[in-house]
Amino acid sequence: MTSSPGATVPWIRIREASAHLGADVEVRGWLAHRRSSGKVQFLVVRDGSGTMQCVAGRNDVSPEAWQALETLTQESSLIVRGRLRADARSPGGVEMGLQSVEIVAIAEGYPITPKEHGTDFLMDHRHLWLRSPRQQAILTIRAEIVQAFRDFMHGEGFLLVDAPIFTPNACEGTTTLFETQYFDERAYLTQSGQLYAEAAAMAFGRVYCFGPAFRAEKSKTRRHLIEFWMMEPEWAFATLEDVIGLEERLLVYVVGRVLERNAEALKTVERDVTKLARVRAPFARIHYNDAVARLHAAGQAFEWGGDFGGTDETILAEQFETPVFVTHYPAAVKAFYMEPDPADPRLSLSCDCLAPEGYGEIIGGGQRMASLDLLTRRIDEHGLPQEAFEWYKDLRRYGSVPHAGFGIGVERTLAWIAGLDHVRETIPFPRMLYRLRP
Amino acid sequence: MTSSPGATVPWIRIREASAHLGADVEVRGWLAHRRSSGKVQFLVVRDGSGTMQCVAGRNDVSPEAWQALETLTQESSLIVRGRLRADARSPGGVEMGLQSVEIVAIAEGYPITPKEHGTDFLMDHRHLWLRSPRQQAILTIRAEIVQAFRDFMHGEGFLLVDAPIFTPNACEGTTTLFETQYFDERAYLTQSGQLYAEAAAMAFGRVYCFGPAFRAEKSKTRRHLIEFWMMEPEWAFATLEDVIGLEERLLVYVVGRVLERNAEALKTVERDVTKLARVRAPFARIHYNDAVARLHAAGQAFEWGGDFGGTDETILAEQFETPVFVTHYPAAVKAFYMEPDPADPRLSLSCDCLAPEGYGEIIGGGQRMASLDLLTRRIDEHGLPQEAFEWYKDLRRYGSVPHAGFGIGVERTLAWIAGLDHVRETIPFPRMLYRLRP
Repeated sequence: MTSSPGATVPWIRIREASAHLGADVEVRGWLAHRRSSGKVQFLVVRDGSGTMQCVAGRNDVSPEAWQALETLTQESSLIVRGRLRADARSPGGVEMGLQSVEIVAIAEGYPITPKEHGTDFLMDHRHLWLRSPRQQAILTIRAEIVQAFRDFMHGEGFLLVDAPIFTPNACEGTTTLFETQYFDERAYLTQSGQLYAEAAAMAFGRVYCFGPAFRAEKSKTRRHLIEFWMMEPEWAFATLEDVIGLEERLLVYVVGRVLERNAEALKTVERDVTKLARVRAPFARIHYNDAVARLHAAGQAFEWGGDFGGTDETILAEQFETPVFVTHYPAAVKAFYMEPDPADPRLSLSCDCLAPEGYGEIIGGGQRMASLDLLTRRIDEHGLPQEAFEWYKDLRRYGSVPHAGFGIGVERTLAWIAGLDHVRETIPFPRMLYRLRP
Repeated sequence: MTSSPGATVPWIRIREASAHLGADVEVRGWLAHRRSSGKVQFLVVRDGSGTMQCVAGRNDVSPEAWQALETLTQESSLIVRGRLRADARSPGGVEMGLQSVEIVAIAEGYPITPKEHGTDFLMDHRHLWLRSPRQQAILTIRAEIVQAFRDFMHGEGFLLVDAPIFTPNACEGTTTLFETQYFDERAYLTQSGQLYAEAAAMAFGRVYCFGPAFRAEKSKTRRHLIEFWMMEPEWAFATLEDVIGLEERLLVYVVGRVLERNAEALKTVERDVTKLARVRAPFARIHYNDAVARLHAAGQAFEWGGDFGGTDETILAEQFETPVFVTHYPAAVKAFYMEPDPADPRLSLSCDCLAPEGYGEIIGGGQRMASLDLLTRRIDEHGLPQEAFEWYKDLRRYGSVPHAGFGIGVERTLAWIAGLDHVRETIPFPRMLYRLRP
């Protein structure tokens, strides 16, 4: 066994290994771990697509080569070449009989070892923590969810229309807004692309925006990120009923796709997939009034007219195996642009979707106000400057139509689907209260 | 012809109309324009997916209904129902014989009329301008390009790993950075996710990030946006050659896909598609030294060692029908992390891709520095604080490998493919110098 830089076997990725059984191939990656029986060395190599066991017998190689293998430490980078063979005991069912190893770089003292590390330590080493199997599994599911969102919206005829990140108005107070100097004036970082998506819906009929959003919230909970990603569809001529149906189809599609394509990753994060398999339409739908009654029946003190807290959401969601839609929230706890409920004008044509297993709200949405007069009045009632909303009011001046939409957060959806305790693991480089690094 | 709210014909989108020939359907949209012969009324309706001509004869309808049609103004919203029939003279080849029209809202004095408007006026009315056929065509191509980027990277085995928007360091000066208060410290808005993508590449082998980026540049040119979208792939164990190949395959794929799927939109923007059809591999590749010689031969004053300006790029790009790769720029004009060229250490293993027809640079990339020692030295030479880069240097401490990547801008790529004069039309809500609204 020698370093053979001249070898011209194909460079494959580990996840494709089973298609190359019996062939001589090359894998480029990093040493996950190594053990030796004295007669045989086992290298477990990861290349970012999977891990593979590579085996060398003492008699297969020169004493120098054997010695070189002994120097390999965790996360050393290397190129291995050899023949692939089926081996049921090996991860992925394929093993490599080593013919040569090229050591690219020896890693000295890799900080993340198989022993337990504290959360702060791991967060400080997020750039390396990403290499751990659990983090790999979570971010693989994240990428699948993002693409599933996009593919689903495309299939439903919605066009991607990116909303801007810089916005000019701090209409609803600056307490949770990040602000920056934008040449001669102040700008704020978006908390939602919805108003822009509404404008785009009047142009394209069905649109969605999908990008980062920012909330300067001083809360340190397992559900809060300062920077998070959100998809916001907006649908012209649609009602509350229409978007609830759309949300239901979306969640069924996304969960089904992750179950189908990320079985290995779900196993790595030890997700109870039987709970995901129960996510089938129709989801339960409960009216706000009914939700309040359910809280009272559960012994929870709750005053009609308020918004639900985390505990309230958990109590409601625990009554169902699927996500549950809570509809018709009081107008007072929702944004100024929500269409009032014709059946009870104290309520709004709004809907939140609560994930099961205590994950709480993952979607918020509803029908938007179509009337220019009412919208103008609401802007006044909320003490907002009319002038800042003239462009938004134009959407009601010129061809106003009933329309509805929602926002779904990537990180909360992922936390639920992957069964995570905390959103800090749901995004590659989390930004949280006092956490801006690495 | 009456308003028939009880009708239960299917609501279809105009782009699917040809699949419903002979059927009674409903279309919901806005009036693009209307004309009347006295005996027949022609309504051209747009629904965001296309436009359709709807025809009513005077004798088909009651005098009241005829009168109602006369009140319809541009951008009034309406629901039309009727039978679809083939008609070669009609846009899309399908026409509706009107059975009923439900007027949803009359638009009074829509500001964007078929007459010419100035750019400032249109930009101020961007939320309405999006409804114009040309803007619809451009943003439809934009969505296709974005999805083509993602599908291509997925096909090449690259995983989406989002880079953060908030970054802690203003290492290379704050002049073009937007800054904000991030709780107890200052944070800056990302100009590139590359360093984070490098960390992710060491975890996943092949990754890309794709999100907004921000440059506080006080330049008002046809190529600058303050807020723009960029995709940045990063590839472990890859060389400069590898990423040039990847870029070439990406551009061929994206242009081919737009030609195939956006023929109508390209026609709307009057793109000369024969020029796009010439975008086939292999693209020309010229070494920096060769590029300088070409500039001199063209009579351009240019000193070896400098970076190319817009005019230089145009001169070079005009010599080719495909995009052209310019390789091996001087290290001094590129970022500190570029791998030096072993053949001439004054140069770097870098590559820019220049689009044809004067569109200039659309991709910048290259091979990243693998050596910890050299990287440490370069950070010193650039007067940067070592401490801010310790996490980045960890990527060289623990399993360093050759790796390479690039960044491609959505808006410049779109400007080129759609043949636009200015990037302001390439993004739904452009943010430019002194332009933060709507």
